[in-house]
Amino acid sequence: MASDIRACIFDVFGTVVDWRTSVSKDLAAFAESKGIPGIDWLAFAVAWRKLYQPAMEEVRSGRRGWTVLDVLHRESLVKLIGEFAVKGLSDADIDHMNRAWHRLDPWPDAVPGLTRLKTKHIIAPCSNGNIALMVNMAKRAGLPWDCVLGAETARAYKPMPEAYLSACRMLDLKPAQVLMVAAHNGDLKAAKAQGLATAFVPRPTEHGPGQTTDLAADPACVDIAADSFTDLAQKLGC
Amino acid sequence: MASDIRACIFDVFGTVVDWRTSVSKDLAAFAESKGIPGIDWLAFAVAWRKLYQPAMEEVRSGRRGWTVLDVLHRESLVKLIGEFAVKGLSDADIDHMNRAWHRLDPWPDAVPGLTRLKTKHIIAPCSNGNIALMVNMAKRAGLPWDCVLGAETARAYKPMPEAYLSACRMLDLKPAQVLMVAAHNGDLKAAKAQGLATAFVPRPTEHGPGQTTDLAADPACVDIAADSFTDLAQKLGC
Repeated sequence: MASDIRACIFDVFGTVVDWRTSVSKDLAAFAESKGIPGIDWLAFAVAWRKLYQPAMEEVRSGRRGWTVLDVLHRESLVKLIGEFAVKGLSDADIDHMNRAWHRLDPWPDAVPGLTRLKTKHIIAPCSNGNIALMVNMAKRAGLPWDCVLGAETARAYKPMPEAYLSACRMLDLKPAQVLMVAAHNGDLKAAKAQGLATAFVPRPTEHGPGQTTDLAADPACVDIAADSFTDLAQKLGC
Repeated sequence: MASDIRACIFDVFGTVVDWRTSVSKDLAAFAESKGIPGIDWLAFAVAWRKLYQPAMEEVRSGRRGWTVLDVLHRESLVKLIGEFAVKGLSDADIDHMNRAWHRLDPWPDAVPGLTRLKTKHIIAPCSNGNIALMVNMAKRAGLPWDCVLGAETARAYKPMPEAYLSACRMLDLKPAQVLMVAAHNGDLKAAKAQGLATAFVPRPTEHGPGQTTDLAADPACVDIAADSFTDLAQKLGC
């Protein structure tokens, strides 16, 4: 199977980058610079992420027209600023905080693994993040994408079939020639249902030290179980 | 003005790559490998390019639904195979010939210039070529794009306003923060009308030794006149 793969497409939040540590540290540093005390920014980051699926579900369900993630993130952020009673923020401050998602740090194996995978394959994000978010993140973190695919180019949020099929079509490849890489079995199950090849890379601390989900690949939907991006590169002969 | 620029977006056919020489040489080499004699492949390449604007105009006018350039190219190719009376080609041969547009060589200053521009700016194609074409070309030629924008992500062919505005929107930048780079004044005139900054780089042999068009920047629509991509990098302080 590995010999048919022409492109590797990646889930990003959690799989390529560590959103939990990055968002909480970014917000904490910003709050300190603004002299805003007393907020648990780790709890804030986790609460922000909890609003992610419900916000996208409004779009997936058709109740809301196509809306990019930066806009959904900002609406959730404004809600949480109220709930956590954060005071003294200007609109520009809120814009800056919202772009914490553009400033996420990669897991240590991500850049070395992607760099090796890129030598033989097309590599692209297939994330629910929008293009500006993915491009700004990649410039800062050194993620060497060949192009940016995902929800905004598909105008569909994962796990909708079109999010995966659009990426294959835009690369002019058959689904079986495209490997979806994720740390989330649910993402891979949805990709596999559309005929894509799948690879699981565990990120056992994405949700913190007590994580209980996605600790191992689900053999029902995973073709390749790798330990890391560099192990995946090895397994694909890169 | 240069200090406001955050992204440089590029016309590709003619501006980044030399389509005329590349397509004609690619087809001639393929014909030789297949034992097909007696075709003037330079004339063939020029005739193919002549069908480019009329084919896109069908889509721009709304007479035809959204169709990517690979499909338009292939229809024109089949037409020309008839007109030039090229015999003995299979469907797979025609597919291979069509992908000559994925195998274009860059002008000598393109990769060094893009590499320098990328250190300070987002760089992306804003071409009428589709994503697969742009990605395959970039992998082969070493074009270090940050992402691929253009007709397919906009679902609009240049010079329609949406082709330029969509690129700015997807980067979450104001048009004035985006520099459109082209060897064609017409492209820059259309970009300037939407508020983008513009840079002209001359490609005086794009159409061969007797070229009479686009030999110099039109001051009415060009903000920066550069000699080459490396000169442009210099002018932008990269």
